[in-house]
Order: sequence, then structure tokens, then C-alpha cells
Amino acid sequence: MPVAVTSIESSKYETQYDPTKVLKHPEFRVLKEGDPELEDEQANVACAYNPAHEVHMIHKPLFKPGPGEVTVHVRATGICGSDVHFWKHGHIGPTMIVTDECGAGHESAGEVIALGDGVTQWKVGDRVAIEAGVPCGLASCDPCRTGRYNACPAVVFFSTPPYHGTLTRFHNHPAAWLHKLPDNVSFEEGSVCEPLAVALAGLERANVRLGDPVVICGAGPIGLVTLLAAHAAGCTPIVITDLFESRLDFAKKLIPTVKTVVIDRAASPTDVAAKIKEAAGTELKLALDCTGVESSIRAGIFSVGFGGKVFVIGVGPSEQSYPFGYCSANEIDLQFQYRYANQYPKAIRLVAGGLINLKPLVTHRFPLRDAVKAFHVAADPTQGAIKVQIQD
Amino acid sequence: MPVAVTSIESSKYETQYDPTKVLKHPEFRVLKEGDPELEDEQANVACAYNPAHEVHMIHKPLFKPGPGEVTVHVRATGICGSDVHFWKHGHIGPTMIVTDECGAGHESAGEVIALGDGVTQWKVGDRVAIEAGVPCGLASCDPCRTGRYNACPAVVFFSTPPYHGTLTRFHNHPAAWLHKLPDNVSFEEGSVCEPLAVALAGLERANVRLGDPVVICGAGPIGLVTLLAAHAAGCTPIVITDLFESRLDFAKKLIPTVKTVVIDRAASPTDVAAKIKEAAGTELKLALDCTGVESSIRAGIFSVGFGGKVFVIGVGPSEQSYPFGYCSANEIDLQFQYRYANQYPKAIRLVAGGLINLKPLVTHRFPLRDAVKAFHVAADPTQGAIKVQIQD
Amino acid sequence: MPVAVTSIESSKYETQYDPTKVLKHPEFRVLKEGDPELEDEQANVACAYNPAHEVHMIHKPLFKPGPGEVTVHVRATGICGSDVHFWKHGHIGPTMIVTDECGAGHESAGEVIALGDGVTQWKVGDRVAIEAGVPCGLASCDPCRTGRYNACPAVVFFSTPPYHGTLTRFHNHPAAWLHKLPDNVSFEEGSVCEPLAVALAGLERANVRLGDPVVICGAGPIGLVTLLAAHAAGCTPIVITDLFESRLDFAKKLIPTVKTVVIDRAASPTDVAAKIKEAAGTELKLALDCTGVESSIRAGIFSVGFGGKVFVIGVGPSEQSYPFGYCSANEIDLQFQYRYANQYPKAIRLVAGGLINLKPLVTHRFPLRDAVKAFHVAADPTQGAIKVQIQD
Amino acid sequence: MPVAVTSIESSKYETQYDPTKVLKHPEFRVLKEGDPELEDEQANVACAYNPAHEVHMIHKPLFKPGPGEVTVHVRATGICGSDVHFWKHGHIGPTMIVTDECGAGHESAGEVIALGDGVTQWKVGDRVAIEAGVPCGLASCDPCRTGRYNACPAVVFFSTPPYHGTLTRFHNHPAAWLHKLPDNVSFEEGSVCEPLAVALAGLERANVRLGDPVVICGAGPIGLVTLLAAHAAGCTPIVITDLFESRLDFAKKLIPTVKTVVIDRAASPTDVAAKIKEAAGTELKLALDCTGVESSIRAGIFSVGFGGKVFVIGVGPSEQSYPFGYCSANEIDLQFQYRYANQYPKAIRLVAGGLINLKPLVTHRFPLRDAVKAFHVAADPTQGAIKVQIQD
Repeated sequence: MPVAVTSIESSKYETQYDPTKVLKHPEFRVLKEGDPELEDEQANVACAYNPAHEVHMIHKPLFKPGPGEVTVHVRATGICGSDVHFWKHGHIGPTMIVTDECGAGHESAGEVIALGDGVTQWKVGDRVAIEAGVPCGLASCDPCRTGRYNACPAVVFFSTPPYHGTLTRFHNHPAAWLHKLPDNVSFEEGSVCEPLAVALAGLERANVRLGDPVVICGAGPIGLVTLLAAHAAGCTPIVITDLFESRLDFAKKLIPTVKTVVIDRAASPTDVAAKIKEAAGTELKLALDCTGVESSIRAGIFSVGFGGKVFVIGVGPSEQSYPFGYCSANEIDLQFQYRYANQYPKAIRLVAGGLINLKPLVTHRFPLRDAVKAFHVAADPTQGAIKVQIQD
Repeated sequence: MPVAVTSIESSKYETQYDPTKVLKHPEFRVLKEGDPELEDEQANVACAYNPAHEVHMIHKPLFKPGPGEVTVHVRATGICGSDVHFWKHGHIGPTMIVTDECGAGHESAGEVIALGDGVTQWKVGDRVAIEAGVPCGLASCDPCRTGRYNACPAVVFFSTPPYHGTLTRFHNHPAAWLHKLPDNVSFEEGSVCEPLAVALAGLERANVRLGDPVVICGAGPIGLVTLLAAHAAGCTPIVITDLFESRLDFAKKLIPTVKTVVIDRAASPTDVAAKIKEAAGTELKLALDCTGVESSIRAGIFSVGFGGKVFVIGVGPSEQSYPFGYCSANEIDLQFQYRYANQYPKAIRLVAGGLINLKPLVTHRFPLRDAVKAFHVAADPTQGAIKVQIQD
Repeated sequence: MPVAVTSIESSKYETQYDPTKVLKHPEFRVLKEGDPELEDEQANVACAYNPAHEVHMIHKPLFKPGPGEVTVHVRATGICGSDVHFWKHGHIGPTMIVTDECGAGHESAGEVIALGDGVTQWKVGDRVAIEAGVPCGLASCDPCRTGRYNACPAVVFFSTPPYHGTLTRFHNHPAAWLHKLPDNVSFEEGSVCEPLAVALAGLERANVRLGDPVVICGAGPIGLVTLLAAHAAGCTPIVITDLFESRLDFAKKLIPTVKTVVIDRAASPTDVAAKIKEAAGTELKLALDCTGVESSIRAGIFSVGFGGKVFVIGVGPSEQSYPFGYCSANEIDLQFQYRYANQYPKAIRLVAGGLINLKPLVTHRFPLRDAVKAFHVAADPTQGAIKVQIQD
Repeated sequence: MPVAVTSIESSKYETQYDPTKVLKHPEFRVLKEGDPELEDEQANVACAYNPAHEVHMIHKPLFKPGPGEVTVHVRATGICGSDVHFWKHGHIGPTMIVTDECGAGHESAGEVIALGDGVTQWKVGDRVAIEAGVPCGLASCDPCRTGRYNACPAVVFFSTPPYHGTLTRFHNHPAAWLHKLPDNVSFEEGSVCEPLAVALAGLERANVRLGDPVVICGAGPIGLVTLLAAHAAGCTPIVITDLFESRLDFAKKLIPTVKTVVIDRAASPTDVAAKIKEAAGTELKLALDCTGVESSIRAGIFSVGFGGKVFVIGVGPSEQSYPFGYCSANEIDLQFQYRYANQYPKAIRLVAGGLINLKPLVTHRFPLRDAVKAFHVAADPTQGAIKVQIQD
């Protein structure tokens, strides 16, 4: 009677999703470009990066779903900046390091095709978004027990090394970490719910409220979902900045009332702040930084009023400087978001309820066999991609 | 050198707006129906109620604006339920009692036509919304000093007896308690910013957040502005209830995604709650009661989940019962809103920014000379009026 | 590989702690007064109530601890008002009903004497407080996943029917729901951490802050731990009320700076409030009601200032009346606490750190064989007991 | 009828307390050491710094209190680090610059000796603490109207250039910005309420709660009042750090349960953090930095757990670096405090209520004529002074 898994010190998921089960399996192999298996729609192929900074297709064994597990046919997966970063740089921060072939992808939605023992809440054919970070869930884990599971030290986050990702045809997932997609939410939108969850977590922790005047620094994928979410939350005015006019045009198409500021690389943060404040026309309460770049964060600091806040969504270098004296004399707080907890149900509700329209964000679509091509498009800024998806 | 008005115990505004200055003035008189002065567009006529439950037009003297004051030509004024209540019942609660002729109206916007000494932030021709409650503002007043000026015990609230209201042609107002209307916000909308401010204060104190599933009980004027504000804040799903199908139809026109529940007077609160929960299709976090009616509040209590909240916007009887045991076992909080503080700038920002469209709420318009007719329409439920305005 | 218990719909704990395992076991029997087994210090005897409103000792089988379980030799257990209530009245609210012999007690601390498989965080001899409510902990359970596990619908709360309580010699408990007692915290204090957890949960949700002026209504066990906690939190002034002078004297001994108000049963809530306000000498922000009695809650409402709060810790009748109009015009919120989540570590920290001294609260101590006597003392108001403990 | 001072754009206080009224007055003069006037107990002497980095006594004219003003005989004034800084360095940050003789002191309490017109809340002989920052209080000032008056751009803060301070015999002050001292709070304690207000503002904004485990970085005057306040708020455990063992010994005498960590200047922030965590023995939620030093703030960042916070009370250099990547991956927020709003009543309540004992902090006392000596003691670290006071 396995009652109290709560006393086991680390998560069973770490064992369950041990990547060597795949890597050492006799069926595992790297697929060359043009390998005929890529045309086989029943093959469990996936896309992976490795320490040699290669991205390629692999063949993985297909395991039956264990107790409490579900097999999902992944139908849509978006490429995240972190996927590209792992491919190109081999690590994010000092702890997440690509040390072997590692399956990519964590922005996925799909269809339930098989159920493990004891799974009662799903049936074959259900359409689901996949929450890619699976915390240990033990009562002895403070973050898990207190509802902040993004801090779980034993989390299995698919596509963060060493765990294989969800950019694969068939993926086994704990039943409790899937989220039902209503009929009016497509797989494509379900996939984009992942970056939306990041933005929503940020807005929640930043305590964004109806009528808040805000600036969003950066109009990349995270900046744009943040824009959609901030607009849905009733922020007004909203200013958005970027180095590229084209991205600001894209932002304008998404939310016509947004005010835009093109960043001149040569401009000082105070000059940028002056332009942001002029565009806003009212005192800003919050800067949502979606760049992680020091000069952008500084511009955010100088943009908000006394008691304001710069909230950083996304990642950046290990060290940065900031104007301590100015922050201190103006009570300007710096806050940071790391992944998300309890955001998927809300994300899906907002999309289903028509408050957030994610569809325009998907600018490029590739079949699974062309996932490598998709990666190259995602990594090439001249392609102007916002969200590149692999669909199957 | 009048530095520290902060040491004077009660507000100068109480003296400044002493109604007897008007009532005992030789020019003051009640105007009969058809009085020719009503046709005079320069006359300072107003609409007033009295202890005999009459509503009629009056002529008031026109004072020059004092230091720090501004004369506003009132261009649009909405009739509030409280105006009708003062007329018909002569009091609200045990402390606000009509004891003499008392000018009606506190939902107003207009045009600046004269400036008192020391007024630098306005110029003639400026378009403004009038914040009708003027707190004492003294540093020795705890509510004023701590930013919760709706609690100021010395507030002068125009149209709350004994202070004359703003349903008048010309109104002198402290310069600091006017709010600029941007070019894209009409007087009509500026006037409706007053009930919007009530709803916004409620949403702020209820801690409404993006994605919250809520029910709004009551689809009258306050229920409908609350609906607009909750939608702008990203609440989803939103359920709204009312006794009348026609009001729910109106709500549907405002916000097509809203889910509606007609209340059967014979149904028990738990039955009503069951219908609300069914319409929502997800657990509700918050009930915003805009009725003040006991059965409605009870239905709200039974509608929300563990840890939920019933937030009451609006007024009701002095005594009510509630299911203590259920609230206690489910941590359901009851909260209440009294007027508003610091909401006007946000209200105007939301309207100007296109997040809240107040225009459809104004269903009936009357010229100032017909203000009495307007009152009769507002008081007659069969007319189906949402917001009746007097425009000049 | 039992990974995803998260997909099983109801808690395994419900099966694990199914009371019929005890009740239908051949060893189970009710012990008559003076039964020699009561003298046997190795016998697994316990104290139970039943639907016939009897309280008596029982003999229970001793199960080996299952995987993830620990056997605790219970060394100290306090009698809670709810224990007495279940004995005398057979139910609390409409859902918790005594339908068979049901072991009492949920305020316990003890010593680990045996470990089940997979238990690594405990060793024999560890001293622990027992958290008596064990939630399902499933990721599919919203309250559990979001850290509000006191709302878990599948919680096993020992001593709440049908689950046997911890007023027993040997108790098997999930390893994750025990809390280590530091050397300077006795079993006796560890036991009182349970009512302290209730008070702490209330103070946390009531958002009690340093320097808050508060009134505590009721100086019974919960009122007194609330007093200790409010004092530790830096509340000042603190007023406490009770019907009995002797209880207020006890409160004065605990916290000499507390101001006391004896309640005259004949006095109206507004009169009581006047006395409370006079004793406070400053505007009160919060009333912590530890009585659940309508007149007491009303006095709390009239005691606090505009924007104040009445926070109810503890239980009461299913229906109550309240002054709706007054609450509405003064923004006085009503809030309620149901059990607690995540409070034990804090409770133990506060006791170990010397900020809260629980020792004086234990006024009566009985050996386990005399638990029935202990119940009679606890149930008899003339005995003046605050906390009656059974120690073994 | 000066109703709406709210329309005047800048504070009347700026004019009222224009320092040139003193500096250009024929009676104004700098007093040489040993000037006989220093012995005259009726002379309005004060202590001032100037741009030449001198500190000396001055003679000031004595003005009658204006309307709403009160003359206070200052009885106790503490020397703040900022007083010493203005003397030695001539400025704090880029905006506060000593450009002429400028009276020192803003931590003062005294006795009311004369009342201006319209002052009704005070009488001669009242004992008061002086709140040294007087905001404009205009309704048109967003910070003032919303209760965050420490952000008022037109604040007159006595002793911040150009405004003369309260280290003077007689000081005229707005009646509304004095706070009554209860009989059991001495002038000495009333004076120390000023740095206590700083600490309390920090704890409030840092959302410190009962039972929070915290580290306080720095055991100087602000660190020590923060220690007293954090202890009164029920924080536990509390770790405090400093470079000097002697200061930690002082901290231990104040709060015997505090855990101390001596900082080795050569140690890295991560090493310091390791020592702090070891001393705490539990995960820390909050670091209260009272040094403004980069290495100290970094140690704070590495000391707290995921989701923790470093809250900086006090000042530092204009630029600093911080471990962005670590903060981002661990959601560690940086927050800052600037002065205080609405803290004096709470500070006095806590002292009067016996929750905070300020007396031991005053280690050195000087008569007013020896204020210059007091400054030299305060500026000399080898003297081991915590709080140096000038008493009269």
C-alpha cells in the first residue's frame, strides 16, 4: 500500500524519466537527414540537440504508459528561445548543461492515445496541453506543499537537460499534468499556452491590476504574449519597446492601442526612459522587462515613478549593474520570474474566453520531419519569426 | 501665512459649501413647472428634492469662484439610484437625511468657465469630470493622510444632504477635485465615470485579477458598469444574474461572452447558486453583489468555492442574515465597498484607452429644463432605463 | 512504477485509514472502567466517543507501519472543544457525524518508535508533533496543488469522524506529516502547537502586522493562544473580552499588558463595543473573534474603525444576523478561518525561539488510563480548565 | 476663504520654511566655540553644517508660530548618519547638497511652548515627537493624496538642505505633524522614534510577518532598531551580521536570542551567505540590509531561499552590481525603502506598549551647547557610539 510517497526524498519522476532509458535503449538512434523513417507517421521520432551544438532528428523507443501515465500524440510544439540556446550554447546558466543527446521542446499540445493503469480523468481522444515541468509533489517538499512548485528542486522539466523534451511524436506524461483543451482552443493555441503561462506568472507576481500604466521592454515572443496578457488585464496605457521597427509593427497589429518606442542602441537608458515616458503620457507604475538586457532594465528603472517596479520575465547574463542610488531614493523594486506554477488552467481559460488571441503569434509551421529546418528558421533573426511551430 | 490648515479640526469645505448660503439667499426660489426661467440658458437652475418627497427645479444664486475654486458649466449629469431614493424616501441609512431643499446629482462632467484666485492647473474651456466627494484633506485626518479619503468623516459629498448636488447649470468646485477629460472622452462618458469609479473601487479592494472566474449579481446600472470593468480586467468566465431577462439581454449586448442566469424569485439561494455554477462551468472565485439583497448575497456565498469571496458593491437594509456555518467551513469572506478613493484617473484612462465603453449605458437623455421628467423615468422600472442623463 | 498517484481521484489515505480496519478487527473492543488492560503500558489503548454520547477507552489492534509510514508513541494529547462536542452532540455541522466508535484527539506529540519502508527522514527516538489533518496531496487536487490543503475535500483528519484520532498510545502516521520538535520544545508544548496552528492560520489570513491595535473576543483556549500569537506578532494595544473575570485574569497573567473587558450578557453589542474602544484608547483595526457567538461578532463589528475587519476563528451556529448597513457604510469585512495549512513549522519555530510560551496553558494533566476523567474535566466549565492534556 | 490650497502647485511649506528667512535675518550669526550665548538657556541656538565641511553652533531668530504652527522646545535630538555625512561630504546623492549654513538634526522630541492661530489639538506643555518631513499635503499631489507622502516632491524635510533642522532649542512646526508622547515615553525615546520609523516602514513594505526567519545585515543604529522591530514583529530566527564583534555583542544584549555572524572582509558573499544560513539553521525568507554595501547585499541574496527577498533600508553608492542570473533563477526580489510615511503613531504605540525598548540605544548624551562635541563622537567609529543624543 504505497501511501506515503511523501517520505521518499527525491521525486519518482526523476527515475521515471531518466533519459538513459532512451539513450541506452537498443532502438535509440540518430536519424540522418532524409532518413526514410522520417516519412513513417507511426515512428516515434523526435528532435534533439547535443553537446556538439548539433540539432537533428532521433528515433526513440515507445514505452507503454505506466500507472498514472498517459501517452500523448504531440500535435503542435513551439520552439522556445531556450531550445535554440541549448542547441547553440550547450547550457543555460551554470546548472543546466547539455551533456548528451537531449530531446528538445516543451511548448506542446496533443491528443491522448493511450492510458496507463489508474488513469480515470482522461480518455483516448482527449485534446490536451502538456505542462512540461513536473514537480515532485511530495508533502515533504516545501515548494510543492505550499503551491509554488516552480521552485521544486526535483522538478523534471522536459527539454531541460538531461530530460528529453516534448518535440517528439509520442510522449508519456503524468496524467495530472495535462490540461484539457476546450473545443474552441486549437492544438496550436494550446502549445502557445506555455509561453503565455510564463507571462501570466509574471503578471500575477508583479501584481498587475486593471488600469495600470505599464511599459513592456522587448517585443520578441515573450514580450508579445506579455503584451497580450497585459492588455487582457486592462493595463493602459501600454508602451512597448524594441530595437526593431518590424517587431513593433507586429505588436501594433496585435494590439492597435499600444504605443511603441524604437530603441536606438546608442541611446542612454535615461534617454530611452524619456522616450518611454513621453509615449506613455502618464506616470508608469511597472516595467515588464522581457529582454534580460542590462540597458533595457536600466531604461525600465528610469521609466517608472516613485514606488514603481521593474519586473524581469526571462533570462540574462549572470552579472549586471543597476543604479542602486536611484532605486533606493525612488523605492523602485526589482523582481524576477522563474517559470510558472498554477498558470495553465488560467491560460486556457483566457484563450477559450476570447480574452487573449494567440493565433497571430504563430508565424511559421513545419511538419515534424522538418523540425531541424524549423530550428534554423527560429535561430535566424532575419526570418522575422515570432513563434515557429512543428505540427504533426 | 495660512500654512497649517492641517490643525483646523473640521474641513473648510463644510463651511464653504454650507447649503444655507444658497437656501437663505434672496435669489433662491423653487421654480414651478413651465416657469419661463427654465428656458433661459444663462440661469443657474438646478434640480432638487425635499423632505416632502417632491422633486422640482430651483433657481440658485451664482457665486464667483473662491480661491482655489473653479466654476464648471455642468454639461452632463446622470441620475443615480441614490438620487431617486433621497427623493422618494428622504434618507439613506440613519445618517443621511433630507431636511430641506437639497440639490440632486453627483455624476457630472462639464466645462470650466471661470477660475478663482490661485488656480493654475485649469483654463477656461477645459473639459472635466467632477469628483463629487471632497474630503477634508487635512494631515490630521487619518483617512485623508493615508489615502483612503472615502472614509473622511468631514467629506462634503455633493447631493448627499445637506450639500447641494451637481445637477445644476453652474457649479463651483475645488480645482483639485476635477479630472481632465481627454478629447476622445465625451461629457456623457465623463459623467458615467462616477458609477464606474464605484465599480473600480470594488474591483480593486476585491483584488480582482486577470483570469478570475466571477459572478456579478444584479444587472442594474452598477451591475453593468461592474460587468464592463470585470471584463476589462480579464475576468473569465463572467456570469451575471438578474430578475429580468431584458436586463440580461442588455448585458449580453455589452459583453457577448457573458453567461446569464435569470433569477426565479421563488428559487432558494442554493438553487440559484447551482444555476450560477452550472453557467460558469468552473469554480468561481468571487461574487460581486450589486444588489444588496439578502437572497442575492446568499446565492453568491453558495456560488463561490472554498476560500472565495462575496464582495458587496452598493447598499441594502440595515440588517441581514447569512449562513455563518457555511462561510466558516469554507472560508468565504464578506467584503463591502463604500464610495471610492483615487479611482477617477483610472476610470478616465480606461475609457480613453478603449478598454471600457460606457456609451451604451446611457439610454435616456433630457435637457436640463426637463430634469424632473428625467427623474420620473429613472424611477419607473417599466421604462427599462439603465442610465438617464440630463445634458445641457 | 507507481509514479503518478496524481491520477487517482481520491486519496489513498482514505483507504489507508479506513476506520473499519480497526472496528472490524478481532482485537478491537471497548474497555470497561477499571479494565486491567488499562494498566498495561504496552497495550494500544485509546479513547473514543460514539453515537450514544458515551466516551470510553478502547483497545485497538497495532498495525505495522506501511511504506512511508511511521509509528508514533503518542506522549501528549490535548482535548479540544471539538472532541467534547463530538462526544456530547455527536456531530459538528451537517457533514461531520459520529456514526460508530470514533477515536478522539488530534492535538498530539510523541516519539517515533518504528519506521515503514522508504522512510528516510526519521529515526527511532525522534520527537515529533503530529499534524492530524492529512490531505490527499494529489496534483489533480486544486487545494493541495496550490498550497491551501486545509481545503482538500479528501483530507483524513484524525478524530473527525469516521477517522480515529490520536488520543491513543500508538499511532501510525504518514512520515511527511510529522514535524520535528527541537530539544527545547516538550511533548506538552508540541501538543499545544495544534491550537496554536489554528490561531496562526487566522493571524496570517487576517494579515496581522506589527503594531496593529486589535481586540480578541473570547478568552477560552483558542482566544488565549490567539492572544499569545497576536502579542508575539507585535499587536498593540490588545484588548481581550470574556464573560468570565477569571479567564481575563488568566489572560492578564499570560500577557500583563493586555487590556480586559468583562462582557455583561445584558449589554448590547454597541455598548460592549464602546467599552472595548475605551479600553483600547485608539482606533482598532481588527477584531479576532474566538467565540463564534453572534453578539460577540456584532460587538467586534462595532469596535473596529472604517476599513476594519472581524476575523472569526472557530465555529458557531449555521445561521447568524449581522448589521449589513453598518458593515457596508464602514467597509468592515467579515472573514473566517477553517483549520490551517503550512502552520506547524512556524508554530514550532515560535515556541522554540521563545516568542510564544505555551506552557501556562496546560492546566490539567491525566495519564492515558484516565482519559475519560480528563474528558469530564474538560467538559465541566466550573473546573476552570484551559487545556486538559493526556500524557503517557 | 482659502478653501482649495489644493490648487496651488507647490507646497506653502517651501515658502514658510525658506531658510533665507533665517540666514538673512539680522540676528543670525555663527557662534564661536565658547561664545557666552551658549550658556544662555533662553537663546535660540542650533547646530549647523556648511559647504566648508564645518560643524558649529549658530544663533537663529525666534519667530512666533504662524497659523497652524506650534513652537516646540526641542528636548532631545539624535545624530543620524546623514547629519554626519552632510557635514563631512556636503551632499547625499546628486540632489541634496549643502550650499549654505544648514541646521542639523531631524530626530527630535520636545515640549510645546507656544501655539499659533487655529491650533486646537495641542496645549502648552504637551510632550511631542516631531515628524521632520512635512509633505505638501495637496490633493493635487498624487503621493500625498494616496497616502505615500514620503514620495512628495515638495516635501520640506528639516535638516535636508536647504531646510534647517531640529537640532535647535526652539523649532516652529506644523501642528499636524507632531505626535503626542504618552507619559511612559521619554523625550529620549521619542527622538529615537525617528530611526524606528525608518525600520518600521521597511518592515511594513517588506511584508514582514510573524514567524519569518530573517537576516539583518549590519548592526549599526539602523540595523539595531531594525533588530528590535523585527523581534517585536515575531521574526524567528533572526541572524544579524556586522564587521565588528563589539556591535554584535551589543545586539546580543538587546535581543539575547539573536544569532550573530561576524563578517570577514576577505570572505566572498557566498561564503558569508553560507555562515548566515548555518547560523539560521532554517531557510531564510528575507534579508534586511542596513548597510547599503554591495558585498553585504550580495551576501543577502545568496542567504535567502527561492522566492526570498533582499530589502534595503538605508543608502549607498549610486551604482552596484548584483548576480542577475541567480536572482532570476531563484525569484529573489530587491526592494528599497526611502524614508517613511504613517509610521510615527505606530512607533510610539510600540514603545508605549512595551514591545520595543529603545532606551539602550542611546549610548552618549550631550547638552545642547556641546552639540559639536557630540558630532565628533558620532563621527568617530572608535567611540563605539550607537546613538548620540543632544538633550536640553
